[in-house]
Amino acid sequence: MSAPLRIGVAGLGTVGGGVVSLLNDNRSSIAERCGRDIEIVAVSARDQSKDRGTDHGSAKWCDIADLPKLDDVDVIVELIGGDDGPAKILVEGALSAGKPVVTANKALIAIHGVALARQAESAGVPLLFEAAVAGAIPIIKALRESLAGNKFQRVYGILNGTCNYILTKMEQTGRTFDDVLSEAQELGYAEADPSFDVDGIDTAHKLAILTSAAFGRAVDFDSVHVEGIRQISAPDIAYAAELGYRIKLLGIAQMTDHGVEQRVHACMVPIASPIAHVDDAYNAVVAEGDRAGRTVFEGQGAGAGPTASAVVGDIMDIARGHIGAPFGVPVASFRDIPPASMDRHVGPYYVRMTVLDQPGVMADIAAVLRNHAASMESVLQRGRSPGEAVSLIMTMHDTVEASMRDAVDEIAALDSCQETPCLIRIEHFS
Amino acid sequence: MSAPLRIGVAGLGTVGGGVVSLLNDNRSSIAERCGRDIEIVAVSARDQSKDRGTDHGSAKWCDIADLPKLDDVDVIVELIGGDDGPAKILVEGALSAGKPVVTANKALIAIHGVALARQAESAGVPLLFEAAVAGAIPIIKALRESLAGNKFQRVYGILNGTCNYILTKMEQTGRTFDDVLSEAQELGYAEADPSFDVDGIDTAHKLAILTSAAFGRAVDFDSVHVEGIRQISAPDIAYAAELGYRIKLLGIAQMTDHGVEQRVHACMVPIASPIAHVDDAYNAVVAEGDRAGRTVFEGQGAGAGPTASAVVGDIMDIARGHIGAPFGVPVASFRDIPPASMDRHVGPYYVRMTVLDQPGVMADIAAVLRNHAASMESVLQRGRSPGEAVSLIMTMHDTVEASMRDAVDEIAALDSCQETPCLIRIEHFS
Repeated sequence: MSAPLRIGVAGLGTVGGGVVSLLNDNRSSIAERCGRDIEIVAVSARDQSKDRGTDHGSAKWCDIADLPKLDDVDVIVELIGGDDGPAKILVEGALSAGKPVVTANKALIAIHGVALARQAESAGVPLLFEAAVAGAIPIIKALRESLAGNKFQRVYGILNGTCNYILTKMEQTGRTFDDVLSEAQELGYAEADPSFDVDGIDTAHKLAILTSAAFGRAVDFDSVHVEGIRQISAPDIAYAAELGYRIKLLGIAQMTDHGVEQRVHACMVPIASPIAHVDDAYNAVVAEGDRAGRTVFEGQGAGAGPTASAVVGDIMDIARGHIGAPFGVPVASFRDIPPASMDRHVGPYYVRMTVLDQPGVMADIAAVLRNHAASMESVLQRGRSPGEAVSLIMTMHDTVEASMRDAVDEIAALDSCQETPCLIRIEHFS
Repeated sequence: MSAPLRIGVAGLGTVGGGVVSLLNDNRSSIAERCGRDIEIVAVSARDQSKDRGTDHGSAKWCDIADLPKLDDVDVIVELIGGDDGPAKILVEGALSAGKPVVTANKALIAIHGVALARQAESAGVPLLFEAAVAGAIPIIKALRESLAGNKFQRVYGILNGTCNYILTKMEQTGRTFDDVLSEAQELGYAEADPSFDVDGIDTAHKLAILTSAAFGRAVDFDSVHVEGIRQISAPDIAYAAELGYRIKLLGIAQMTDHGVEQRVHACMVPIASPIAHVDDAYNAVVAEGDRAGRTVFEGQGAGAGPTASAVVGDIMDIARGHIGAPFGVPVASFRDIPPASMDRHVGPYYVRMTVLDQPGVMADIAAVLRNHAASMESVLQRGRSPGEAVSLIMTMHDTVEASMRDAVDEIAALDSCQETPCLIRIEHFS
């Protein structure tokens, strides 16, 4: 058996604790599987005095700034988080010192991934981040290695467990977003400041990384179109069910004639599609390759165990001596695919309007839609209350996003329209 | 860029043709992703004169016996199939010559996997077989690498597309097994001799390989309990739906107190479980790890494109210089876990009986079940026809397999019992 692989772990929160306990508990089977022991020789955390209940054995405490400099540390494991500050300084320092890095930090990789990958490639060391996307699901390795012979047309997924939990609970109970969010916060499933999750930013970080791994293109977080789920209402969920859909917050990366579309928003997905059945805090990713066809990966997207599973998988790859470009394709060979503007997105839509039940309303709306080349697929009006406000539900055939938005703005301005219409994109996944 | 990786391909059927065309079509992106070209320098097939419509460029034709001896071939790709004969001779010859091997041959690996892995490990070369299990789904690599930090409690899946197609069609149409099988044969979804698929042997080959990769134990095909789907009837499918289940042919590997259980049989699975929604010719594998929790992989399990995707993924790993033990754990470190006898399996059961509708029948059956410590969970009798044969459906709480079988044999011997009872195991997956 070769010499042990000696690691330094920065950050001993939920994930760091999970990594330490996994390496302790499964020590011998891990050593058998990678041909050498994995030893934690140094740890670093903000507060050294805090009792975390994890046993990091004989590992020495050290200042985070010293971690990359330690001669007896072979690999740096960054579990601090945040796209800037100590995490970034640590990862840059480690790569500068020619040390492999494993990180679970999606913000860091989504925003600084290209520069860090370039640094890792010139140092000739691995930079691995399986845990940054969809927790235990090994999607980065699948795109980078297992399915790497494919060209991908589309990659999409449920990438945020908090949003999926909230949408699942809203559907099951008929309660409002605010109500379910409060409960999720009490149960510890949502943060006190939930905006990172419910406004789609976390999903967008993960999508940017997935896009790069799938399409061999520079990570480009700034081009991601990002919407969250705050505007989703109980009636939308009920109408979705009636129309044969469920509502999920998805991250979608798709090749189009105009470049690669990266978008994060709530979608109606067909009830028969695999992604419609991914509930609660589970994550799922679907990759559509030219040879493999549709491959679906589902698993736990967060938490100590699932995230540690991914981190340790990466460490074991380094222990085996595996190496490759962080995003599969080396930075120098990245394909020059432009981002596609969201305005040019084409797809079907669901529109829920609140209008006065009076003669001529439908004609006005139909005229607006016709003027914007938006073609109705179905119309639903529940109940009749002449002179009162009623819900009018439409689904549209494939329409250009910019036209659809203009049409909805014009409808909103009609005298008969009582509320801002609610627009939700429909995705026709098989 | 490094020197090209030169491969020799034996077998130019559906899969071989798929590999050749994938390597041609995606040549440049494959080269970018593994840092070197992959060149087919030699091919071998039974009938050289047959026009296969694939372009293997300047590759030379050669006799299969000569393939391992060619100095300009770095890797042998075995796509002939069969657990004996030319495929086995080729793989042994290649490993003896110190050449890495990629194969899609599940029978070969299920039956001779330990000996071949030992040979590969002493030669220090990779032996890769991702395509042998579940087509495009990268489950072998996931178990061997991505999830390798986990200890697994259970791994199971839908591993045969033909059976899943037949069961899906039977459910959708209410038609009989024989009827749907004939149609599948006409459509080319089932072989003229379907026994390999419908009697569960193909699933058992794949399960034996999965078990070894998950539990770090010698491949042990002979210990797999194997049943097929010929006995599944339309009424069973209908009653399953009524009870909240769907019927799937599964391969299940499970750690128990008595050792590892490996079993292939039709199961009733809860309608809410992910595996219940895997339809038609799709495959799925579920791995339950101590840290990752439940991870589900779904994709196309057969066909030129999906199988070629897996074969080429393996070739690309070799091109990158990755190496590891074929089953994750080296043969010398295999854990000595005994096989658990099917007689000791414990689980819930569904039993459908055809009995005369007359006084005392239920008492007789209940007495038999009591004598075998089998406890009823539910009883269903549809319709009343005094003196005539009626269906009696029971579900049983956890019962020992041997007791359940003895009880059913005794029930079958009762005068009132008109047909051999049908026994289907229930799996309570979450």
